[in-house]
Amino acid sequence: MTGDMVNLSLDDVYKLSVETLTANGMDDSHAQAIARVITAGQRDACDSHGLYRLIVCVRTLREGKVVGDARPAIEDVSPAITRVDARFGYSQLAFELGSVSLIEKARRVGLAALAINNCFHFSALWPEVEHIAQAGLAGLAMTPSHSWVAPAGGTRPVFGTNPIAFAWPRPGAFPYVFDFATSAIARGDIELHRRAGKKIPLGWALDPYGQPTVDPEQAMRGTMLTFGGHKGSALSAMIELLGGALIGDMLSQDSQRFDEGVGATPCHGELILAFDPKMFGGAQADLGSARAEAMFSSITGQGARLPSQRRFAARQRSLAEGVNVPAALYRDVLSLRPA
Amino acid sequence: MTGDMVNLSLDDVYKLSVETLTANGMDDSHAQAIARVITAGQRDACDSHGLYRLIVCVRTLREGKVVGDARPAIEDVSPAITRVDARFGYSQLAFELGSVSLIEKARRVGLAALAINNCFHFSALWPEVEHIAQAGLAGLAMTPSHSWVAPAGGTRPVFGTNPIAFAWPRPGAFPYVFDFATSAIARGDIELHRRAGKKIPLGWALDPYGQPTVDPEQAMRGTMLTFGGHKGSALSAMIELLGGALIGDMLSQDSQRFDEGVGATPCHGELILAFDPKMFGGAQADLGSARAEAMFSSITGQGARLPSQRRFAARQRSLAEGVNVPAALYRDVLSLRPA
Repeated sequence: MTGDMVNLSLDDVYKLSVETLTANGMDDSHAQAIARVITAGQRDACDSHGLYRLIVCVRTLREGKVVGDARPAIEDVSPAITRVDARFGYSQLAFELGSVSLIEKARRVGLAALAINNCFHFSALWPEVEHIAQAGLAGLAMTPSHSWVAPAGGTRPVFGTNPIAFAWPRPGAFPYVFDFATSAIARGDIELHRRAGKKIPLGWALDPYGQPTVDPEQAMRGTMLTFGGHKGSALSAMIELLGGALIGDMLSQDSQRFDEGVGATPCHGELILAFDPKMFGGAQADLGSARAEAMFSSITGQGARLPSQRRFAARQRSLAEGVNVPAALYRDVLSLRPA
Repeated sequence: MTGDMVNLSLDDVYKLSVETLTANGMDDSHAQAIARVITAGQRDACDSHGLYRLIVCVRTLREGKVVGDARPAIEDVSPAITRVDARFGYSQLAFELGSVSLIEKARRVGLAALAINNCFHFSALWPEVEHIAQAGLAGLAMTPSHSWVAPAGGTRPVFGTNPIAFAWPRPGAFPYVFDFATSAIARGDIELHRRAGKKIPLGWALDPYGQPTVDPEQAMRGTMLTFGGHKGSALSAMIELLGGALIGDMLSQDSQRFDEGVGATPCHGELILAFDPKMFGGAQADLGSARAEAMFSSITGQGARLPSQRRFAARQRSLAEGVNVPAALYRDVLSLRPA
């Protein structure tokens, strides 16, 4: 323990996650799939998607909304589409099972989609699109959440924080990856400000009366805002439509109603696309990859950063040195095991 | 003529466009396909994509870069992918020919892509995604342009203005459609400010020394900025990768070099995706559509607007009353016909 931090190995993080989840009634296969993404989040210094998420996860389990031992059901919809019905379990196991078919189909016909239905969803999307990039494919993922975010020009929530993530495979390097909320900020970041007693910047949220606020409590009870004005708002609507309406699943408004005020993890669907550069590019595929590398060089060569550089640096550090977790968070997580 | 405006019927706009293009050496099939999108742009009051575009189009034709009678070649890449090699002609005819196959494949396997290669590209993308929505499918289109836009944290251009457009089919209503540049503003809007002698707002561009500028001349010679900070920048890179590298075509940097300082229309590729809500949604497809409608009602019900409402209102007006075009622009267009 250093000051008020605890040093844990990635193995410690994984085991702590699995034990916490199984102690709260989750079956092994779900607990392991979730522990993998929580460990990846903590490893990459994504604090709001690391061990902290166990708190929300266990609360949702205890509320009895999520099915801790749901068996995902895979449906072969077409040569380009696979559906996994998560049966009201968490999304991670559904993704792990469905992504095998997604990758196979993308290799066979060049473009494929995985629709996950009826899943409780709390994880970042970058582990999924990175998984696709590891297979040499480009990946694009999106999902609604709970209706916490107002459309541009409005003051009442309609959209979720609606993340979108993308990965492009790079030869001999970490992939090009981004994963961001189409809200001005992730909801977890407002919650972390609240826990830390810090103000939030203007532009993140409106209070319950539709006025700009710097108070995270007021923001949580009011409405969040999208990034990028009307353009961010339009994208957020697209994510509702593709990650919700298209796949016949709940939009953020529906997921909010389904929650019945419990404050559990949102329940809805997710859409993941995979693109094969070899098939799309044909004889020009290598040239396409080389041109992409030239673009990355033009970005980093002028001192600008690629989206996940900080995360990859944290990953390399964590693999060598483990992770430092606030002692208070560590205690909170330990207290999640039933006495 | 009202003041310094000229009233034209949509038929006038179409005929003027066809005649201007064929008088400058373009063959009929290309001229008609381009005249359709220019007429649609003028009809919807998208000034930078209406008759004004004939000026750039003719300049590009005269520079000899674009092949005015190129025969697009269609390739059936897979059950989910169609490629059209535009053979260095304009993109519109390639889209019209390729979209037949795109729509067929999307209906057959639920998800399909159209890759257009080697095309000169100047049109808005909303006519294309609206065309897909008219077939009952969701459409997503993106394309690079010329490297005019700096990445977040940089001061030198790497990205194009990189538009992204999306359409969702709505029963008995105009589709939900957006089409926006991932630059803070479309380049055409800076050019319109320059022609009108107006300043541009801060945040659109940097001057050639990397400093913020309100001077459209300096902006055109410096670098534009993306919308939405690092998130807009990340999306712009995704558009380079999917609309360029993936399909083995030029990225905006390459297109800029290919132009050799001529200032012609950018030459590169385009990626268009089509999604069939019936196949993706299965038994839940109608429910998905109903939930989408509920979301639109939540947006408009609080006084916020859907992205294309202004454009659709202009369309209804233009269909009834024709369009009013600045007399100076009308004269400029008339002067494009060789003496």
